[in-house]
Order: sequence, then C-alpha cells, then structure tokens
Amino acid sequence: MALFEKGELKVRRIQVKKTSSSSTSSPPSPLLIVAPEVEGTYPVLQFLHGWCMLNTSYTDLLELISSHGFVCVAPGDQCDLTTIVTCCGNDDVESAAAVTDWMPSGLQPVLPDKVEPDFTKLALAGHSKGGKTAFALAMGLAETSLKFSCVIGIDPVAGSSVSNQPKPKILSYIPRSFGLTIPVAVIGTGLGSQGKGILPPFAPNGVNHAEFFLESKPPCCYFLAKDYGHADMLDDWMIKLTSWVCKSGEGDKELMRRGVAGIVVAFMRAFLQGDSEDLNAIVKTPGVAPIQLDPVIFVEA
Amino acid sequence: MALFEKGELKVRRIQVKKTSSSSTSSPPSPLLIVAPEVEGTYPVLQFLHGWCMLNTSYTDLLELISSHGFVCVAPGDQCDLTTIVTCCGNDDVESAAAVTDWMPSGLQPVLPDKVEPDFTKLALAGHSKGGKTAFALAMGLAETSLKFSCVIGIDPVAGSSVSNQPKPKILSYIPRSFGLTIPVAVIGTGLGSQGKGILPPFAPNGVNHAEFFLESKPPCCYFLAKDYGHADMLDDWMIKLTSWVCKSGEGDKELMRRGVAGIVVAFMRAFLQGDSEDLNAIVKTPGVAPIQLDPVIFVEA
Repeated sequence: MALFEKGELKVRRIQVKKTSSSSTSSPPSPLLIVAPEVEGTYPVLQFLHGWCMLNTSYTDLLELISSHGFVCVAPGDQCDLTTIVTCCGNDDVESAAAVTDWMPSGLQPVLPDKVEPDFTKLALAGHSKGGKTAFALAMGLAETSLKFSCVIGIDPVAGSSVSNQPKPKILSYIPRSFGLTIPVAVIGTGLGSQGKGILPPFAPNGVNHAEFFLESKPPCCYFLAKDYGHADMLDDWMIKLTSWVCKSGEGDKELMRRGVAGIVVAFMRAFLQGDSEDLNAIVKTPGVAPIQLDPVIFVEA
Repeated sequence: MALFEKGELKVRRIQVKKTSSSSTSSPPSPLLIVAPEVEGTYPVLQFLHGWCMLNTSYTDLLELISSHGFVCVAPGDQCDLTTIVTCCGNDDVESAAAVTDWMPSGLQPVLPDKVEPDFTKLALAGHSKGGKTAFALAMGLAETSLKFSCVIGIDPVAGSSVSNQPKPKILSYIPRSFGLTIPVAVIGTGLGSQGKGILPPFAPNGVNHAEFFLESKPPCCYFLAKDYGHADMLDDWMIKLTSWVCKSGEGDKELMRRGVAGIVVAFMRAFLQGDSEDLNAIVKTPGVAPIQLDPVIFVEA
C-alpha cells in the first residue's frame, strides 16, 4: 500500500536554532522542521519527542510523513538538564504551547520557497512522554492561539506506574473521560510494557497506550504494533543506543517506521483533510500495513 | 422507571446446605437461591460474591433482580479460612464451575412449585473479586456443561495493583483482548478507587472496572455509579460493617441497589431475552436511573 512507502514529495530538513536575540522569528525552542520542497500548501504536524530523546532521533519517521504532504515541526529543547529536573511540572506543556504560538509568524519564513503551512489543518503528535504532553496540550492545559484538529499518541506514557505519574496527571481511570473532543489516534507497541532484563519497562501497563485509548472519546482509533518495542520508530542509530536499556523488536525497524508513518498519514488524511479511505482500509484490513497490527480498533463518533 | 423499582413477582429465599452425603442433589457449595414464587420458566443468574464476603450479604440486590423474573443462584463457600489462603489460585473458578455443573440436576428440585429454570438463558455475574472470577469462568478457565450467554462485572477487581494480581491473571492491558465473545456489562463505582483514610482502596486504578471494560469485546456496556463505593450494593448491615475499611458514598444505598439491579435486569433482558428496550433507554438517558451514572457507554457489536 503506497501509504506505507515513502511518498512522492521530495522533502527538506530544516534546523532552526533558538537564538537569544529578540528577533521575532526566533522560535522559543530549537526546531527540526521537515517539509515538502514542492510548491504547495500543506497541513502541519507538531511533533513532541520522548523524555531524554532528541527531536533529531525521529528524522526518518518525520521524512516519511512529510513526503506525503505534511509540514512537520519538532521542538527539541526538552532534553537539557534543567528540563530533566523540571520534567515533573507543566513546563513541557507550556514549552510545546510556545512553539505552537510561534508558528503563525515564524514558520512560513523558514520553509522552502512557495511552501505554505495551512494552520487550519493542524495535528499534534508525540512519542512516549511527548505523547502524554501532546494529550495535555490538546486538552488545553496550556493555551494556544491555534486550534489542533486531531491528536496522535505514539506509545504514549504517563508515568512509571499507576501510583507514580508526574504532573500534570491526566489519567483518571474512567473510560472516555479525557477533556478532548477532537479525534484521537493511539499507536501502542507490544513490547513497550516489557522490561529489558531486570530494567523496568518504558511503557508500563496501567499508564501506557491502552489507558490513553480507554480514556479517549470517539472518534478514536487504536493500533498495536505487536512485535515492536517502545523506541523502535526512532532512527536506527538511536535505536542502537536505546536498545541497551529498552526492549526492541526482532523485526526490521524501517518497516516499523513506515508502519507508524502510514498510520499517522492515514489518520491526518481522515481528520485534517476529510479523506477516510486509507484509514478505513487499515481498519478493515490491518494486513495492508508492513508490520503486524493487532488489534486495530476504530470507534466512530 | 419501573425497572429500577422492585418487580411485580413475589420472591422466595432458599438456602441450600452443602451436605457431606453423596446425595446427587447436594450442591458443591452452600447456596443462597432467590427465585420468583409465581409459576413460570425463568432465566438464571449465577452470582459470585466478593472476597471475604457472604453470599447472604447480597440478599436485597438478588431479591430486586429476582422480582423481575430471574432465578438467582449465589454460592457461598468462598469465605472460609482455607479459601482465603488459597484464594490466589484457580480454586474460585473451579468452585464456581462446579456450581454451574450442579444446576441442571440440582436446581429445579429446590425451587418453588411450578418454577422452572431455563438454562438456555444463563447469565453470570460477580462482585469485586467475584467479578474477576466470573470473567475467568466465562473465558473457560474452568469447564462447564452449561454455556453462559452474558457476563456482568459489578465493580470487578483483579488484584491490589497492576503488578500484584493473584492467579489466574486475566488482564493483559490490551484493548478488547479478553477471550470472550459473549456480551459484557461492567458496573463500576466512583469511590472504589479511593482508600478509606490511610487504608488502600478495594478497587484500585489499573485493576478495576475501567480495565475490565477496556479489555472486553463488543457488545459491551459500561456504567459508572459515580457517587458510590465498592461495597455500596450490599445489604445495609454489611455496608455498616465494611464502611470501617471501605469508602462508602453519602447517598441512600437502597437507591444504589436498585440502580445496580435495574442495570443487571436491563442487560439480561437485552442479551438473554432479546429485548433491548430498557438497556437502550438507560444508555440514551442515564437520568432514568435512581443514581448518577456517568459515564454510560454501550459499544455495539
């Protein structure tokens, strides 16, 4: 299925530094932007990385997504010592909101010529703790001038256990209780809840993908990448590093990245662009994906 | 709504002892049976009590249910010292299965004259740990000669935490993963996940109603009795006892019992008797119930 291959558009990586000048175009965080190079107006995906990850660890994934016609904006300052220490507050949510608010004035000037962002079609995604931050931001725990049209959690994690969840605590253990009315996609990993040797898992049961899906209101969809681990959608070099502490699947990680990218694209086509054909195809026949997805669930509105 | 009042049928309580004789009519467990006294053929509900509870603590609830035309069979031997010690194995499931298997030969003779059980319409329910046992039995973890047509968990609990679940462990933290194809109803309590003072809760987050609902396949429905506690559907005398250790709601417990009984009756009417009118009414207008139900969710097949 073409959706799970690299798309037709050539893409460009753009790194934007956070400068200390008062220039209005300076973003509040350093950014990795991946955008089509072909003239056009494209929907925008803001992507929040996982705890202690680099935004640049997701370059392959973001390129796959962007090549299907999306501008991806991944802030990258949530990895310094300060933010590790303060990671238990609302800082991540505020910081992500600041990037959202920067986009209307700042994004277009750094994109390739004749490439325009369409902020009326704005999606929000995040991986791991970034997934939780994405849900928190979409719920309005920080204010933004732009409105998100849908939210995607990629193996989202809310803490190390049910009884140990950093603030802001968003899980309530009540079905469909999230204060969110926009469509939700949750992509889980089957091995994320397993530890590596004696180390604890990165996406423990009770605070992972399943709980995020449970608390989401329809329309919401769920995809479990059964045979892959919590970090297996990162770039290969980063998977090599994380695989010392994070259980990784046996399968080809390129297939995992293509699987995740394809789901994200199908979901955004459905809920940003009004074209549900690809999403319905995956839901009806999960075997079209290059990785085993089991279960796949779509609860319509 | 009449469903939430006492039904029109007069009912009789029947206690059947477990005798040590080899009489074929002796049940494998002592039983509390509550049955209509009016001539007729009625569906059967097997009801499994909670950990360290007595089957007789549910008399009011079972009478309410039975008065709408159901024969309720509640085994009661899961409270002696031996079973407290062995409660971490499959014994409860085997013990419940033995009662199911006794019913075809043993039940009819102990019922009022001209009252017949219809074993083609058999439901299984349980409270607290008994709710988990009900799911385990419905999944076939012990064999039974009769087939259950639907299963109901009343504030079901699978353990004291995600990482501490007595065997048989049935939760997998994957949506819709239960090996069950019969309809499921889950009734949760809003206060069950809160401890009494410094005591731990009886229905902790991560192992309670929400997770049971998440792992159920459609058709499944969910009702949260928001303002009531884990034991608030028991008889008043038992609520008084448990309220020293188990958080209880402020509201009238008779309303809670009528609320729970009405849901159970509506669900059995829908999935044993093919009449979905009452269930649909509750789902559409939760306000028809005498207690606040929020949320109410019905995921159809």
